[in-house]
Amino acid sequence: MTIVLGDNRYGKARVRVVKVTRDTPVHSVTEWNVEVWLEGDFQTCFEDGDNSRVLPTDTMKNTVYSLARGSSATSMEAFAKELVTHFIETNPNASTAGVSIHSTPWKHLSAGGEHFPTAFTHDEDKHDTTTITFSRSAGYAIQSGFEGFWLLKTAQSAFAGYLKDRLTTLKETNDRLLGTLAKAQWTYSAADLDFNHLRQKTETALIHAFATHDSLSVQQTLYAMAQKALETVPELTEIRLFLPNKHLNLIDLAPFGQDNPNQIFVPTDEPHGCIEACVRRVD
Amino acid sequence: MTIVLGDNRYGKARVRVVKVTRDTPVHSVTEWNVEVWLEGDFQTCFEDGDNSRVLPTDTMKNTVYSLARGSSATSMEAFAKELVTHFIETNPNASTAGVSIHSTPWKHLSAGGEHFPTAFTHDEDKHDTTTITFSRSAGYAIQSGFEGFWLLKTAQSAFAGYLKDRLTTLKETNDRLLGTLAKAQWTYSAADLDFNHLRQKTETALIHAFATHDSLSVQQTLYAMAQKALETVPELTEIRLFLPNKHLNLIDLAPFGQDNPNQIFVPTDEPHGCIEACVRRVD
Amino acid sequence: MTIVLGDNRYGKARVRVVKVTRDTPVHSVTEWNVEVWLEGDFQTCFEDGDNSRVLPTDTMKNTVYSLARGSSATSMEAFAKELVTHFIETNPNASTAGVSIHSTPWKHLSAGGEHFPTAFTHDEDKHDTTTITFSRSAGYAIQSGFEGFWLLKTAQSAFAGYLKDRLTTLKETNDRLLGTLAKAQWTYSAADLDFNHLRQKTETALIHAFATHDSLSVQQTLYAMAQKALETVPELTEIRLFLPNKHLNLIDLAPFGQDNPNQIFVPTDEPHGCIEACVRRVD
Amino acid sequence: MTIVLGDNRYGKARVRVVKVTRDTPVHSVTEWNVEVWLEGDFQTCFEDGDNSRVLPTDTMKNTVYSLARGSSATSMEAFAKELVTHFIETNPNASTAGVSIHSTPWKHLSAGGEHFPTAFTHDEDKHDTTTITFSRSAGYAIQSGFEGFWLLKTAQSAFAGYLKDRLTTLKETNDRLLGTLAKAQWTYSAADLDFNHLRQKTETALIHAFATHDSLSVQQTLYAMAQKALETVPELTEIRLFLPNKHLNLIDLAPFGQDNPNQIFVPTDEPHGCIEACVRRVD
Repeated sequence: MTIVLGDNRYGKARVRVVKVTRDTPVHSVTEWNVEVWLEGDFQTCFEDGDNSRVLPTDTMKNTVYSLARGSSATSMEAFAKELVTHFIETNPNASTAGVSIHSTPWKHLSAGGEHFPTAFTHDEDKHDTTTITFSRSAGYAIQSGFEGFWLLKTAQSAFAGYLKDRLTTLKETNDRLLGTLAKAQWTYSAADLDFNHLRQKTETALIHAFATHDSLSVQQTLYAMAQKALETVPELTEIRLFLPNKHLNLIDLAPFGQDNPNQIFVPTDEPHGCIEACVRRVD
Repeated sequence: MTIVLGDNRYGKARVRVVKVTRDTPVHSVTEWNVEVWLEGDFQTCFEDGDNSRVLPTDTMKNTVYSLARGSSATSMEAFAKELVTHFIETNPNASTAGVSIHSTPWKHLSAGGEHFPTAFTHDEDKHDTTTITFSRSAGYAIQSGFEGFWLLKTAQSAFAGYLKDRLTTLKETNDRLLGTLAKAQWTYSAADLDFNHLRQKTETALIHAFATHDSLSVQQTLYAMAQKALETVPELTEIRLFLPNKHLNLIDLAPFGQDNPNQIFVPTDEPHGCIEACVRRVD
Repeated sequence: MTIVLGDNRYGKARVRVVKVTRDTPVHSVTEWNVEVWLEGDFQTCFEDGDNSRVLPTDTMKNTVYSLARGSSATSMEAFAKELVTHFIETNPNASTAGVSIHSTPWKHLSAGGEHFPTAFTHDEDKHDTTTITFSRSAGYAIQSGFEGFWLLKTAQSAFAGYLKDRLTTLKETNDRLLGTLAKAQWTYSAADLDFNHLRQKTETALIHAFATHDSLSVQQTLYAMAQKALETVPELTEIRLFLPNKHLNLIDLAPFGQDNPNQIFVPTDEPHGCIEACVRRVD
Repeated sequence: MTIVLGDNRYGKARVRVVKVTRDTPVHSVTEWNVEVWLEGDFQTCFEDGDNSRVLPTDTMKNTVYSLARGSSATSMEAFAKELVTHFIETNPNASTAGVSIHSTPWKHLSAGGEHFPTAFTHDEDKHDTTTITFSRSAGYAIQSGFEGFWLLKTAQSAFAGYLKDRLTTLKETNDRLLGTLAKAQWTYSAADLDFNHLRQKTETALIHAFATHDSLSVQQTLYAMAQKALETVPELTEIRLFLPNKHLNLIDLAPFGQDNPNQIFVPTDEPHGCIEACVRRVD
């Protein structure tokens, strides 16, 4: 019997950086939360405590700051590519370098019809994400998406005709609320694309499909959204959607002598449904 | 020596309710998180376990649901008033009834220039709040506000000329980022007002003052914001602002041979400054 | 009409400090999360941006670190007293200095009957707290307590005989689970006490009363706990307890042909009851 | 070009259940947070909205409650096995059923040397976990572990001799604090084991190795822990450890004229190191 090291990785998470562009009277603000990691030949480090191949994670943090200063990247994907390229070049023992970025959206403050050029607030609570790896064998893999995106349908949502067993008590409905805190991850077919433009096209397709779908189930709506994104954006090879079913339960007001024609609901955090799937393009 | 019951209250918190209005093709969604409480003569309950004067908090929850169904309130303040009025009328032993509401903002989903009438997402992460009490002796007290409102200035913010002692290491600056996760509470002079309109006017005043103030300190900006709100909205008797100083620290890039002319910052959650004050109108 | 500054305070929150004692082979670890604030004559700062009386909150943070190094305090109360004394002495414009400390409990790791002298883990999830102020007019005020202390009774808890109205649907019970995430704040009659010993006596009284009380309501149990603490610890002048009723709902298994004799419950986070009261000693 | 459904799953998360055993004067409390999911042939559901093969996630929730009532399981693994067996038997279209359980630890309240038989509090903040799947092709796969387990070493931890580049500023040290919020997942070689006993043996091995290791890096300590567990518990085929490096930074007190011989630290939440690896047994 032998004990051996299997897959492993190490890196730095939650490296936050804000970049302010102030070269015109209208400033802009970008906030990124970065994770960096390396995989490769680090066996002697784990087994023998030999640190000679280990770039400290503190240096990874410094690198995020330093490259942010010099970077001309205009998308989070471009900045992530700069980072993985740097780490693969400076770490000969790494076979793969990876970077994930989670973006906090800022927009200009406005009030009374006026927009303020040097004052900001958070935009809606969707966070854009990207995960980019570079492996010496396979090159770049680029997966972008979002998380924390609340989506709610107040029409065109049913759930009926399902499997029933002796423990089923759910009532079938042709008109329910469908709420989800959506997460999406799509994979690009190439590493040199206009990522901001493709993100916008993909999100527009997903939102349009969600909002207009005549839903028989979360599963069916998920598939319709993914299908629409793949049809609209040829640069995507696949898309994975996580649509937890965040139930909004119709309140029974009959004990109080009141009807409730789909008007008053209790939103609940737990338990919640979990629906996820990958939809992909094949030749 | 005697042991006696002092001030006390009991109630129900985190009663969430969503109300969907669907009588036109363009739906609307309102989400409120409600807290209800009573104060009054409940001494025998605490001391003897006599529950005969205690309305169960479960009934308070039911009441929120039932009144939401029948309510024609168009503001959170109006709904809170309906609730406190109900509780004071049905609980003879209560001297005061109180209701706090914390609102989750929803807006219609849009994509590619299109707005979807029956699909929604969360709006920006500011939450509107109101706390209304009715006491048999003093009538209504109405305090509205917001919380969780991120505000960031990238210009016109300095901090210098402060007191120094032997433990002071902070460097003076005439150009820093000023970030805060603002909370506001303002008190209305009357109970029968157009609350939605006044909220909008108050927020516009606060935002305008924050964005345009030439700030020498968070304290001074806080005062300028409060002053502007009180000047603009005569229906306010006082306003209390909480402006935690959520530091964005300039990163020292000199060790890497780079300058950093106020461009690259680390946002931090802790430690943070705490600045709060009440500003009020006197005759 | 004039606009004036009302009550105000400023300071630093979430100053975390860990102190390791290593002068014997058995180490010890203390973790404190400190908040510091000042109140006083800061009108010119708010109104005119005059910072000459303002000690930066960054200096407050440094002071926590520096005093922690030199301190011989053996209780969080003693350390908080050192801090408020320092701040009141070095800030002539402050009329009151305050410090709150929230403690994270550490204990030695153990496994297989062995205790490890230089390895630690978090203890149970109760956090001890203290808030100490010194005002030039009134001297010290010392309030200690805890928060985040889960308490659950599986016997001797009833709730019946309560007020009912047309919206009441709750069923009376003579045997329910009573769960609460308790918070306590007690006030000491003097500033020079053996705080660790008194904390232990107070907590023992509270726990004993909770565990053995034949409860007719959360209110009655709250009062019994407070009464026991005040009777046992003469150095307390009053105690305030917050006992949110974190409902564990009995699951109805009848639809599945099963009984449920108080065995299977759903714990819920929302909505929850809120019961709080101050109980005090009078002469 | 064709668009096809890839891998997918659906289920229910955050199904919380508390089981109270009250058949002796000394009660016991078990709290489990359960997730259930199915994978299999659900293509028509996604593509066509055909729900006839879809067991509602609401029924999964009911099933957790119902089986908890009848279950005689004495370990979380045994209960998870009952659940997956049930779901695989009642869902012919599922090729795999999975259950994850996250346990909240309760212990008897005690005070003044007394233990209370029907009163409880949370135990230390480690949460035990298990994930069990049953696939028609491969049978059971059982992976147990824990998460949220704070581990801190105040001696025998160094980090030096590492790779340096032009962005490295970290100082080498032979004496630092090593803190981690550990997560572990180990895989059992069989499905019919004494899981509670093996959990205890595994945890004892991990804790012992952590506490006594003369650490040259987090990586090396991780490997030593995993190695010890695999050597001690032959029933484990592999173990994966996640040891985020939760930095406790030594505070520089020199500006205040003080030394700091590894006594005063700032614990930080971000950024943090991420060290993870799988260690396994080979023949």
